[in-house]
Amino acid sequence: MDALRIGLLGTGTVGGGVIRILATAGDEIARRLGRRVEITHAACRHPESMDEARRKELGGAQLHSDPMEVVEADDVDIVAELIGGEDVALRLIKRALERGRPVVTANKALIAQHGDEVFALARERGVCVAYEASVMGGVPIIQVLRESMSANRLQRVVGIINGTCNYILTKMRTENMEYADALSEAQKLGYAEADPTLDIEGIDAAHKLAIMAAISFGTPLSYPAVFTEGITAVRGVDVRYAEEFGYRIRHLGVARLGEAGLELRAHPALIPSQHLLASVDGVMNAVEVVGDAVGPTLYCGAGAGSGPTASAVVSDMLEVARTMAAPVESRTPALAFQADAVRELPIAPISELKTACYVRMMVKDKAGVLSSLSAILAKHDISIRSVSQHEDADAGGKVPLIFMTHETGDENLSRALDEAALENDIASDILRLRVENLS
Amino acid sequence: MDALRIGLLGTGTVGGGVIRILATAGDEIARRLGRRVEITHAACRHPESMDEARRKELGGAQLHSDPMEVVEADDVDIVAELIGGEDVALRLIKRALERGRPVVTANKALIAQHGDEVFALARERGVCVAYEASVMGGVPIIQVLRESMSANRLQRVVGIINGTCNYILTKMRTENMEYADALSEAQKLGYAEADPTLDIEGIDAAHKLAIMAAISFGTPLSYPAVFTEGITAVRGVDVRYAEEFGYRIRHLGVARLGEAGLELRAHPALIPSQHLLASVDGVMNAVEVVGDAVGPTLYCGAGAGSGPTASAVVSDMLEVARTMAAPVESRTPALAFQADAVRELPIAPISELKTACYVRMMVKDKAGVLSSLSAILAKHDISIRSVSQHEDADAGGKVPLIFMTHETGDENLSRALDEAALENDIASDILRLRVENLS
Repeated sequence: MDALRIGLLGTGTVGGGVIRILATAGDEIARRLGRRVEITHAACRHPESMDEARRKELGGAQLHSDPMEVVEADDVDIVAELIGGEDVALRLIKRALERGRPVVTANKALIAQHGDEVFALARERGVCVAYEASVMGGVPIIQVLRESMSANRLQRVVGIINGTCNYILTKMRTENMEYADALSEAQKLGYAEADPTLDIEGIDAAHKLAIMAAISFGTPLSYPAVFTEGITAVRGVDVRYAEEFGYRIRHLGVARLGEAGLELRAHPALIPSQHLLASVDGVMNAVEVVGDAVGPTLYCGAGAGSGPTASAVVSDMLEVARTMAAPVESRTPALAFQADAVRELPIAPISELKTACYVRMMVKDKAGVLSSLSAILAKHDISIRSVSQHEDADAGGKVPLIFMTHETGDENLSRALDEAALENDIASDILRLRVENLS
Repeated sequence: MDALRIGLLGTGTVGGGVIRILATAGDEIARRLGRRVEITHAACRHPESMDEARRKELGGAQLHSDPMEVVEADDVDIVAELIGGEDVALRLIKRALERGRPVVTANKALIAQHGDEVFALARERGVCVAYEASVMGGVPIIQVLRESMSANRLQRVVGIINGTCNYILTKMRTENMEYADALSEAQKLGYAEADPTLDIEGIDAAHKLAIMAAISFGTPLSYPAVFTEGITAVRGVDVRYAEEFGYRIRHLGVARLGEAGLELRAHPALIPSQHLLASVDGVMNAVEVVGDAVGPTLYCGAGAGSGPTASAVVSDMLEVARTMAAPVESRTPALAFQADAVRELPIAPISELKTACYVRMMVKDKAGVLSSLSAILAKHDISIRSVSQHEDADAGGKVPLIFMTHETGDENLSRALDEAALENDIASDILRLRVENLS
């Protein structure tokens, strides 16, 4: 059979990984697909300065500095969008679809925010858009949720889906680092960007969560509805106290069908130290998927990086090649559910969430503080499970007071903490972390 | 679109699970597939004594005591073989394929031993056979290896793939039980059969391993070549010493490309306590897949049981419905690789394996034993990493002597242990467990 012809947009980290895979594993891939996969056109910023080895791996591919030329080329069966960002990438993808070219992309921000538009256009033109690489790198979590769990009414999808946050939190625990030091180490090692905002503020996790939630529950992509919190307020002392209470702090993406509707959240949380997710350290990602028939299942692997992400991109190419040969009506829909069966679910506001919580506040090291705090909590109907206070005072004479609540309403606790922050003996920066129920 | 019509062979544990899923999650499934899934014919031993609730869940399905009637029925799109065993099941599957009916099966023994024949017939008739449920219940490990890892040259597939063994080994560790007690508890709870041979002797794991190895490495199904050992010789003392050395004992299936060829093994092994696989307790299964691009990835969930296995069966039905609409040449081959690209790989004999080992022997509690043992080991070029001996003597005046070797040739150690067993002061039943290298 003729080779499968790829138009590659981007030759950076992920694009470079794709080039490497096709150059080294091309024979093995052909043994599976029954035809070779060949890059016929590739776009990169400076074709003239591409290094020799890369150029050689690319074989006979034609290089372009204008990515639109790749999209417009006729000898391309699949366009792989690996340049990232939103504006340019969206324009390229739309043009490819308009020309009837299927698209493979690793662009989570784009899918989370413009997926509905992209998939509608793809449907209209009868072509596919594959995006396995947008979540969890080479671990096929999109495939799992989109097809393998199709016999289940899913109950929750909870996971560590940002490697940067997980690396920082791991370092804070295992090497007793403070947040800033762990972040700068992550940056040195290339695990965090120079501007780490997308990762540490939870935005990247929220993008990925929105994608997973849509295909798990048959709802439209709802990125703006994701409650999002980063890890910048977590301190070493929190990591240590969590451990003492039998928990570990992880930044989680959570999609969960609860009584108040669909919970969509991306925030740091405490999880029991014995849970498998608590053993997932460093830049590894892991997602737990719970369905009514299958029970709890877990998927784990590197969530980013050249090889893992490119692995997903290339397997998507094979998948798309196969899918395109099938009649449109028999293909799995891009977002798993038939377009006319997608339904808005009520999104549960964070204020209605009920969880146990961890709270850390800096208080004056003197008698009576705990008593007035207890009174405030009691007034708001919040019951305390344990209190701990055994650190030395800081320069300002304040000590961290840590307590864990029983299950409580999120808004109740917010009100109580707002009131506590007005007390003279309690500093106003109070950290509250939710305990994720994984039983 | 018309409903997808299922002919169900077997209404026991797995068949019952399928009936339950279609009765309860039917709407959700239709939202995904775009059509309903309906059981039109079902075979069970005693249709007349089926209980009311089950009968109701089956809706309008016609019941048969002769399963061949289901295969011969005309209003069936997919035959689901869930009766297990080999002879009858094989006859039914072959007849279904001859009639051009695709088949979904959970039958690992059949696929491992007769897969080549079954898939050849399916190819000849242009229909598919899906078998996701044959390994790891609802965790889609077949899909992962067959399609999602297609960009990788796989390096190893290592996992806990028998829940009965894992339950027994877990109980031995967490509750200090002896093997026989843990087995009888597993039997009481339905985790082990009255005749547990297939599980505890490693045969079930070997079946599953053979299937995973074929689709991972593009080789023919090689069940007879799998080196197979069960867990019946493992004692409480081994579990405790392993822990002391920083390891945990698991029954593993291992397929690994090594220098001497493809290793195919199913046996108890020591793995580092910190590895994720060591945290997978009870009846849970977990498989680690390592590819050259993706790195290490891990998949975990219940490996058996009604709901989990039926989850895989039903998702296979959807997959088959979609695949059957595509032209034959564009479908993923049953065993992942194109039939003409499947290649015999040299199978590495166990004698050429090189691993560190754990050895336990019962020795007379007197001076000089360790010295003569050391001499024997030195003669065979085996170097010891650590020795431990701190249990009380048994009724016969013998104490367990435990040692760990550095990496050593399997055959070397076998010879040394055979020689040691001839010593007067060393009992002849010596246990050797391999240490699995997971780095």
